[in-house]
Amino acid sequence: MRLSRYFLPVLRETPADAQIASHRLMLRAGMIQQASAGIYSWMPLGLRVLKRLEQIVHEEQMAAGHIPLLMPTLQPASLWQESGRYDDYGQEMLRITDRQERRLVYGPTNEELITDIFRRHVNSYRDLPLTLYHIQWKFRDEIRPRFGIMRGREFLMKDGYNFDVDKDSALHAYNRHMVSYLNTYEKMGLKAIPMRASAGPIGGTHSHEFLVLAETGESEVYFDNDILELTESDHKVDFDNPQECAEVVKRWTTPYARTDETHDPVEFKSQISHSSRRQSRGIEVGQIFYFGTKYSEPMNAFVTNADGDRVPVHMGSHGIGVSRLVGAIIEANHDDRGIIWPEPVAPFLVGIINLAPKDKKTNDVCDDLSRRLSAFGKEPLYDDTHDRAGSKFATMDLIGIPWRLTVGPRGLIKGEIEMSHRRGGQTIICSPDEAINRLCRGNGRRE
Amino acid sequence: MRLSRYFLPVLRETPADAQIASHRLMLRAGMIQQASAGIYSWMPLGLRVLKRLEQIVHEEQMAAGHIPLLMPTLQPASLWQESGRYDDYGQEMLRITDRQERRLVYGPTNEELITDIFRRHVNSYRDLPLTLYHIQWKFRDEIRPRFGIMRGREFLMKDGYNFDVDKDSALHAYNRHMVSYLNTYEKMGLKAIPMRASAGPIGGTHSHEFLVLAETGESEVYFDNDILELTESDHKVDFDNPQECAEVVKRWTTPYARTDETHDPVEFKSQISHSSRRQSRGIEVGQIFYFGTKYSEPMNAFVTNADGDRVPVHMGSHGIGVSRLVGAIIEANHDDRGIIWPEPVAPFLVGIINLAPKDKKTNDVCDDLSRRLSAFGKEPLYDDTHDRAGSKFATMDLIGIPWRLTVGPRGLIKGEIEMSHRRGGQTIICSPDEAINRLCRGNGRRE
Repeated sequence: MRLSRYFLPVLRETPADAQIASHRLMLRAGMIQQASAGIYSWMPLGLRVLKRLEQIVHEEQMAAGHIPLLMPTLQPASLWQESGRYDDYGQEMLRITDRQERRLVYGPTNEELITDIFRRHVNSYRDLPLTLYHIQWKFRDEIRPRFGIMRGREFLMKDGYNFDVDKDSALHAYNRHMVSYLNTYEKMGLKAIPMRASAGPIGGTHSHEFLVLAETGESEVYFDNDILELTESDHKVDFDNPQECAEVVKRWTTPYARTDETHDPVEFKSQISHSSRRQSRGIEVGQIFYFGTKYSEPMNAFVTNADGDRVPVHMGSHGIGVSRLVGAIIEANHDDRGIIWPEPVAPFLVGIINLAPKDKKTNDVCDDLSRRLSAFGKEPLYDDTHDRAGSKFATMDLIGIPWRLTVGPRGLIKGEIEMSHRRGGQTIICSPDEAINRLCRGNGRRE
Repeated sequence: MRLSRYFLPVLRETPADAQIASHRLMLRAGMIQQASAGIYSWMPLGLRVLKRLEQIVHEEQMAAGHIPLLMPTLQPASLWQESGRYDDYGQEMLRITDRQERRLVYGPTNEELITDIFRRHVNSYRDLPLTLYHIQWKFRDEIRPRFGIMRGREFLMKDGYNFDVDKDSALHAYNRHMVSYLNTYEKMGLKAIPMRASAGPIGGTHSHEFLVLAETGESEVYFDNDILELTESDHKVDFDNPQECAEVVKRWTTPYARTDETHDPVEFKSQISHSSRRQSRGIEVGQIFYFGTKYSEPMNAFVTNADGDRVPVHMGSHGIGVSRLVGAIIEANHDDRGIIWPEPVAPFLVGIINLAPKDKKTNDVCDDLSRRLSAFGKEPLYDDTHDRAGSKFATMDLIGIPWRLTVGPRGLIKGEIEMSHRRGGQTIICSPDEAINRLCRGNGRRE
């Protein structure tokens, strides 16, 4: 993508009203633009990151055997009256009346709507287990929207719902989701810790939140330092195997890790040695629930079990805050020059800086690098503008592109370009061929 | 995808309230489910088609040099007051009041919001031309929603907006969009005819609608039969070349083709020979507009031109009804057994029917076919259920999968399976290897 033809409205000044790093940097990097309080447009660069996160979430959901569908943003109020949540949910739910005086809500979550879909079509345990999910825009009318997309009102979320014939099977679904969520965050280059949490307005007996540690997090969290050492990395789990999933969950839930809502100071002190106790701030980027028959009973979602009895289906729900993750990743990955994207979620893996856009040789080498990277599925952001070199470097640093290739006539006399790493800061001098080799062979990034 | 693990809630009976083929077939094929009047959930099969269309639209937009971003579904009412459309747009616009008594609208289109984004960042002709687009859910509060997703209220649309320094450049953008839209529909396997249209509430001096001919279309259309012979197919156009784009547009706009709003019976009769005159019904699947400075003047979106003068930017907008296209494609591609998907948009290219799911050899061959097709990026829908063969065939026909592989123990004695084509109806007997060869080599479908 040639920068001269792109739309990257970076800001040189720090916006006055942005209190936290991710909000500031997303505005400065031209990733978002506020439309009204807590509601944002995603500029081209921001959308690329959002789409990468969405893609990773889809891949990991499908790997776990979950089925994508798509529910609408607006839901009939009647379903919420059926479950009893229409009044309970409070003012965060945006209530709408259409021209025919029908009452609608802009869905903040979808337990009711998915239960309605389920009960219309599924009647027998033979069609279970079933987990359906979607990635859709939702709305919560936050009284005080702030921190940019971190606490916005219109936000993109993956929410999924499992339907199982009994509690054992539903708890396997709970575990399967924990494993798949761990994989999802790791694929994004993010450390997210599952912590025992309270179920809030969703309800239920089991719940874990996934938290990214960051000073600007809204939650106080308490954990055993050992949990930071855990990783799923290349550990392959058979998602159909309850035993294998339970083992992963056990490993991750044995060390103490709780949000302030479930924190028990006595247990914390008695179970964990002083040197391992950690207290920090965390950003919630996901949550899973098991709530049994809370929705299926009032909404009459029953199936016939193997004994021929009609039983209410056991359910859970699971959410990943996709748009919020963009902010969380930035909170955990930035410096004073700007964002430092983990490679799997970077909007572009490579930026090319042309130091002499009037020099034919320099242009030819830049064009050739662009073409070859694109052929490998790694379309670069190519700064072909006539801006000053210093400004070009500052922009590439600000928007956090992991690799930078700098091309100018002086280096090209010796057939050399500069290749720099945003995170590590190291720069090597190499030939264009070597740069392509390093970026395209040694690098497993999927596009 | 194994059908036993999928969620495909097909209906055996024809739903009573569905009046047109696409609505009936989408319900029967388990593609959609009504949430409330004119608002639908997209079941897994329907979502796959929607995603394919979205992908084709993205590819063709990017090929034309247009830049994707994403605006929110909810917009501040203040922008619509600025343009003067808040009162003009009428009751189809869903008006919302949030908990703080701020007025919002669920966007039916985005001229105001995109103009606001533009004016905040672009000041000079040097940053033009620029075309921004998004694919997002929109809402129009139709008084009488019907025909399923064809005239629904919440719908998915690609809408794009060009910004140009003068009329000439903006008319090139108009032409460029016509070419790119022609390509888009052809990539979907669809014949859509550009017809001179009225600009309606969007406004402006130039507008064409793209119509798919179908008995159930809402518009009466009049055209010269010659236009049906035109095709862009492999004709490569340089989208930056005004001359090349204008030539394509001239070719497509020379034959008479108009909707009832712009139809001129005298001209129709005098210009076209009796044998070439055609009158038909059509479904609108897209529209393009040039409206000059209609929004930029009241909203103060000005740029400095090459002479140093401040001038209002020239704009146009362009829409493709992505969700509506699903219905239009079905209206144009079905028979009494069900849907017949054009290959580029089919939810699955291949269906596999296992005639004896208790037979090990049959299962092994089906598994192997599934695995090999998936390795070629053509994941099949594999009916591994214990349903009757007749029911399996009926379902595959109903959901319109282009190719069907039927595997049973009798054929396997001779190493043979059956390969059938949904559209042509022909069946050949061949080996599993030959089926894979035919489906994966001779076939250019991208995944």
